[in-house]
Amino acid sequence: MHKEILLVEDNPDDVELTRIAFNEAKVANHLVVVRDGAEALDYLFARGAHAGRDPAVLPSIVLLDLNLPKVDGREVLQAIRENERTRSLPVVVLTTSAEPFDVEASYALGVNSYIQKPVDFERFVWAVKQVGLYWLVLNHPRDGA
Amino acid sequence: MHKEILLVEDNPDDVELTRIAFNEAKVANHLVVVRDGAEALDYLFARGAHAGRDPAVLPSIVLLDLNLPKVDGREVLQAIRENERTRSLPVVVLTTSAEPFDVEASYALGVNSYIQKPVDFERFVWAVKQVGLYWLVLNHPRDGA
Repeated sequence: MHKEILLVEDNPDDVELTRIAFNEAKVANHLVVVRDGAEALDYLFARGAHAGRDPAVLPSIVLLDLNLPKVDGREVLQAIRENERTRSLPVVVLTTSAEPFDVEASYALGVNSYIQKPVDFERFVWAVKQVGLYWLVLNHPRDGA
Repeated sequence: MHKEILLVEDNPDDVELTRIAFNEAKVANHLVVVRDGAEALDYLFARGAHAGRDPAVLPSIVLLDLNLPKVDGREVLQAIRENERTRSLPVVVLTTSAEPFDVEASYALGVNSYIQKPVDFERFVWAVKQVGLYWLVLNHPRDGA
């Protein structure tokens, strides 16, 4: 089974911490990083700079920050849910915000799970590691076999 | 924050294993068990034998077997997604089946995550423990604060 984690994150420190956590969880080799919402959509729909990709190959999980350059995380989530091919793609919001407005909007748009980034370094690494294990090892994806 | 795990499971052995796993994860005190799909719906919608419950109090996570007496797991999932109040409730299918038909139907009905029960005892306990940690400790629920 093809397994890939798409991380949509513009903060270089958080990208680095996520990579460290996935190293510990032994899933770092599956990590693809894009830095803004527009590139996330280009990647998922195999267009723009990612036009060469096979659009049928989808990641096992999308880790989505909410506040992103160009196209906002909420818009990325909405676009994923509106497209027949990506509708069931597991999406986890991973953000510093615990604002009820952000939580509510994410669930209303059909996010699978919403996780607030821990501020503490060790807790951040632990949380991201758990996320990797859960969605890559435990969860059975739609097209999995 | 009120935290509760609703386990919908008719197999007494699996209920016991789940309890052991949640003990290890230190979340066993949050476990509510119902034995068939009809009771699951009665519980969630505070009717029948559960008419005394406050229907506004929802579990943090529903762990749902698919093949259940009376009302099938798929019907329970559908009823949850069709009701405005329970629409965003996190639901994880936890089943012995990895049949593509079951996986596909669950995602099409809007399940948050699909997990095949490991046959091996230790792996089962590990998996259920991870599920408990993920949804009770990591995930930020809709009404959480």
